[in-house]
Amino acid sequence: MASTDHGGGEEVTRNKQVFLDDYVSGFPEESNLYLTTSSIKLKVPEDQSGKDAVLVKNLYLSCDPFMRGRMQRDLPPDRPELSSYSLGSPIVGFGVGRVVDSRHSDFKKGDLVWGSTIGWEEYSLIPNPEDLFKINHTDDIPLSYYTGILAASGAIGQLVGQFAKLVGCYVVGSAGSKEKVELLKTKFGYDDAFNYKDEHDLDAALKRYFPEGIDIYFDNVGGKMLDAVLVNMRSHGRIAVCGMISQYNLEQPESVQNLSAVFYKQIRMEGFAVYEHYHRYSKFLDFVLSCIKEGKIVYVEDITEGLESGPAALVGLFSGRNVGKQVVKLAQE
Amino acid sequence: MASTDHGGGEEVTRNKQVFLDDYVSGFPEESNLYLTTSSIKLKVPEDQSGKDAVLVKNLYLSCDPFMRGRMQRDLPPDRPELSSYSLGSPIVGFGVGRVVDSRHSDFKKGDLVWGSTIGWEEYSLIPNPEDLFKINHTDDIPLSYYTGILAASGAIGQLVGQFAKLVGCYVVGSAGSKEKVELLKTKFGYDDAFNYKDEHDLDAALKRYFPEGIDIYFDNVGGKMLDAVLVNMRSHGRIAVCGMISQYNLEQPESVQNLSAVFYKQIRMEGFAVYEHYHRYSKFLDFVLSCIKEGKIVYVEDITEGLESGPAALVGLFSGRNVGKQVVKLAQE
Repeated sequence: MASTDHGGGEEVTRNKQVFLDDYVSGFPEESNLYLTTSSIKLKVPEDQSGKDAVLVKNLYLSCDPFMRGRMQRDLPPDRPELSSYSLGSPIVGFGVGRVVDSRHSDFKKGDLVWGSTIGWEEYSLIPNPEDLFKINHTDDIPLSYYTGILAASGAIGQLVGQFAKLVGCYVVGSAGSKEKVELLKTKFGYDDAFNYKDEHDLDAALKRYFPEGIDIYFDNVGGKMLDAVLVNMRSHGRIAVCGMISQYNLEQPESVQNLSAVFYKQIRMEGFAVYEHYHRYSKFLDFVLSCIKEGKIVYVEDITEGLESGPAALVGLFSGRNVGKQVVKLAQE
Repeated sequence: MASTDHGGGEEVTRNKQVFLDDYVSGFPEESNLYLTTSSIKLKVPEDQSGKDAVLVKNLYLSCDPFMRGRMQRDLPPDRPELSSYSLGSPIVGFGVGRVVDSRHSDFKKGDLVWGSTIGWEEYSLIPNPEDLFKINHTDDIPLSYYTGILAASGAIGQLVGQFAKLVGCYVVGSAGSKEKVELLKTKFGYDDAFNYKDEHDLDAALKRYFPEGIDIYFDNVGGKMLDAVLVNMRSHGRIAVCGMISQYNLEQPESVQNLSAVFYKQIRMEGFAVYEHYHRYSKFLDFVLSCIKEGKIVYVEDITEGLESGPAALVGLFSGRNVGKQVVKLAQE
């Protein structure tokens, strides 16, 4: 191999990184994460270790509830996307970046990309960019959207009801503050919405909003809300289980008591995971891009600046601090 | 209308009946049911009240766990099949009888029938025999089978595993006594079986029997077993929810804690009810009859004699007293 590029002039730059301090049980805190500064060569290694690798400058990072799961010790190893974070590497998640160097035939310097395993750091060397998607960027769509709505990642609460409205559903949302409830009703066009923190009796609240029962429940919450929903489902109702954020920080999960509704009302309940549907991504992207351009879907982001602000933004998800999709902006291009 | 049949010679006969004494909470007891003797004319009334009615002499009654549900007060009225029993009428369930008189064009005297709302009494006047099925009886099939396997009612534990074996599954059953465990393994051909009452740690038991996890769980039990199963399901596992017998007698249902498995393993869980599938009955019957005749399916009944023995047989379901499908034989033909 020629060694002309191996001269002493190779550019080395600072690389700030966010690590997990130790595995978490209960609510994560900002102090569970720490920032360090290392350095990185802005070049994919030319030896075997760099074969097929790309080097990416990270521009936006996504804060997602599922990342809490990965802060836990000893998760089953069968799903790398959901396995425990390694304490020796930066945490990873959805993110957007620009290719700085590439030894992979699909990517070249300057390409914009998004991926689901982008490190929380300024630059990431990605040995096997199998889960990187190229972004065909146009000026009318903010690049940060590819950490969320255009990566089918997060911000689900604001989007799922809008998608349901598009197909003709009557949609009621539940959120954790007056401000968010207003947003659901006014900006996102939900038919109604309520603040679950104001409802001491969720069953009664659901009966008020759905006097004839619920046909479809999109579950991001689990626990007490799911239990109240089960009582209020209609026959043959369907429950799409996307996640159960109310449970992630509990040492002992909340119990659900009303599961017998599943058989006496012939309910279908099914879990799904985005990483099993990436083969349909281009179709999804076409659909969502046209929805955004035609104003059929509204998308709200909560963007914080700088990797330093990342840990607070991430743990803020679990107290509902964010309004809209929580994004960390790393660099202005 | 001619009145020749209305003479004083009309036959009136004794009709023993079983009533519910009062609505039940907790475990039902034999004393919750009582037997009375009334009388009945062995003729469908010739006035408007008897239009389209049939009079049936009941031969076999089926004891089914779902009947416990109907002993409860104030069940939601949307499903007559599952509504609260009326205290003023005999309890009802699956049963087999012979038509004694008919003013319905589909039925004539002498027809054998089965139905899902047969009264616990010697004779039933059925005003609207919409849910009666005619039995094409042949001597090689016991008539009592039409209270169970051939009515798709009950005895599910012994049958579902046999059906699963027919389509190539590896089947492990759970039962509540050594005798039943032996029956599952030797008579019904399950690959393995265990006594759940001997297992203080159901999770560990399931890991022993399913070291690679469970693909399909047929749930008749709910509660603690379901909770342990959820932990041991494989990705994309399916849970068919037929019933939750462990819960029927509890004032407060047991809680399920491991529902998050539904999304992290993309599990589908779905309830179903036989009364929504009667349009497929004739196909089912053909299939099962041929299975029985070819010896591919074995069926075990636990037959008690006389309506007087009915209450004990019915409440005995909930302590697992029966071995095989519990049937009450009312009359020898």
